[in-house]
Amino acid sequence: MLNSNKKIAIIGLGLLGGSYAKGLHDAGLQVTGIDIDPSAVAYAKQMGWIEEGGDDPSLIADCDIVISALYPRTFVEWVHRNQKCFKSGALLSDVTGVKRKVIEEINSFLRKDIEYISCHPMAGREYKGIRYADTDRFIAANFIVVPTSENTEAAIQTAHDIGEALHFGHISVLTPEAHDRMIGFVSQLTHVIAVSLMNVSDNTHLVDYTGDSFRDLTRIAKINESLWPELFILNKDNLIREIDDFTVEMQRFKQMISDEDIDGMRAKLIQSTERRGKFDRKD
Amino acid sequence: MLNSNKKIAIIGLGLLGGSYAKGLHDAGLQVTGIDIDPSAVAYAKQMGWIEEGGDDPSLIADCDIVISALYPRTFVEWVHRNQKCFKSGALLSDVTGVKRKVIEEINSFLRKDIEYISCHPMAGREYKGIRYADTDRFIAANFIVVPTSENTEAAIQTAHDIGEALHFGHISVLTPEAHDRMIGFVSQLTHVIAVSLMNVSDNTHLVDYTGDSFRDLTRIAKINESLWPELFILNKDNLIREIDDFTVEMQRFKQMISDEDIDGMRAKLIQSTERRGKFDRKD
Repeated sequence: MLNSNKKIAIIGLGLLGGSYAKGLHDAGLQVTGIDIDPSAVAYAKQMGWIEEGGDDPSLIADCDIVISALYPRTFVEWVHRNQKCFKSGALLSDVTGVKRKVIEEINSFLRKDIEYISCHPMAGREYKGIRYADTDRFIAANFIVVPTSENTEAAIQTAHDIGEALHFGHISVLTPEAHDRMIGFVSQLTHVIAVSLMNVSDNTHLVDYTGDSFRDLTRIAKINESLWPELFILNKDNLIREIDDFTVEMQRFKQMISDEDIDGMRAKLIQSTERRGKFDRKD
Repeated sequence: MLNSNKKIAIIGLGLLGGSYAKGLHDAGLQVTGIDIDPSAVAYAKQMGWIEEGGDDPSLIADCDIVISALYPRTFVEWVHRNQKCFKSGALLSDVTGVKRKVIEEINSFLRKDIEYISCHPMAGREYKGIRYADTDRFIAANFIVVPTSENTEAAIQTAHDIGEALHFGHISVLTPEAHDRMIGFVSQLTHVIAVSLMNVSDNTHLVDYTGDSFRDLTRIAKINESLWPELFILNKDNLIREIDDFTVEMQRFKQMISDEDIDGMRAKLIQSTERRGKFDRKD
């Protein structure tokens, strides 16, 4: 359990940072909020989620845990510029959706008396801003701790405790490599597919003919255009390989349609039905 | 409104045929059910959805409207073999999901005293069989009447009335060409995508890391493997063109990732977000 004497700073009070502030406050912790937008800080104070807040990085000077909820590039830059403000022995964590490059960059310059433990709460949304902050959706979501061989057991445990304090439904541990491979398929490829399906042509005149299938498939085509290009680029090796593999598989199916290969298609449909069955929620 | 003196036959008491029998019975019509499976007929009788039923095509001899709920190929063969049993002046309709070829084939041999008006209720499911029959889902679904220039106004009106009697949420009229083009994109391409995503590799070990996005995107990968290969082949020109266009669009996006073209990606994401917004349900 997270020690309630620990003082926590959240850097960036957006959708996820705001949700973290709320959740950690609700768990009985003292939270400090940093954001360059005074209205986000004022909102968090007004909601009672943070005790102190502002745009001044030196506010984190007495914080034991500093969690960045910034976009990846901004996160790296912010730590680089402000690591002088950290308390000695502080733990640094984050919420970025892609890991290898971010971990490598942070660790290349981080002060030796600060430990960085990387985390990925898989609870994004298409909305932006603290006014959409909400901890309810953590319950059904995954919280992934992404340690390297440099991390201490204590830091890994604290990261786990943060996920628990926020009531994430499933907490797991992955290496940076396994994490980025998984994200390239489960999250990034699916977003590229949904976006491409909306962009292939202006089919909005078909709105009256679309059922739940089409809506479900394209829901994630509503996407934060500031964040995702960064995430795609930071994982481009995995993502490009996934797009290529998917394209080959789709071309294989197209060939079966073209050849009128009923048996081949049937085998593909049986396999997809069986595999997809394993993803049905048990509840 | 559908005249309740009309006698209706449903050919094929599966998921959709059973749902039709139930819905038309509930609307006050006399329904005859034909199926080669005695247990399906017995079930429909037991539920009170049909008054007469069996595997004998001559049971339709006094029916004013004959609706086939068979798969496309079986539908064409069944009519070819049994059109001698139809009452003179009867109206023939169907539920097949692809239209141009089916309409062309039926009309190439249909008796001149029978009129065929093609319909597509967009209310399929991944389950099979009359035990899943259910009219509730018609309320949110589309019913499409697909007339040709040969059809009479009276037949088009009756088709419309059938959709209304079954309480479909939205009834519209499309030409066979426009219907098949729309279906190639909205329904068939999306199923090929979902199936290919499940088949590209065995990713079932990732089940713990998948959220609603992945589940939504692949839900339709659970698919009736007997029906869909037929539908794909019957619309192969449209479907292959849609797969090709989609592949080109995805490759375009891949190139932007590869080039780290943030502005290009951002424009694509803004466009997809905006277009997808138009598909949000108003309720």
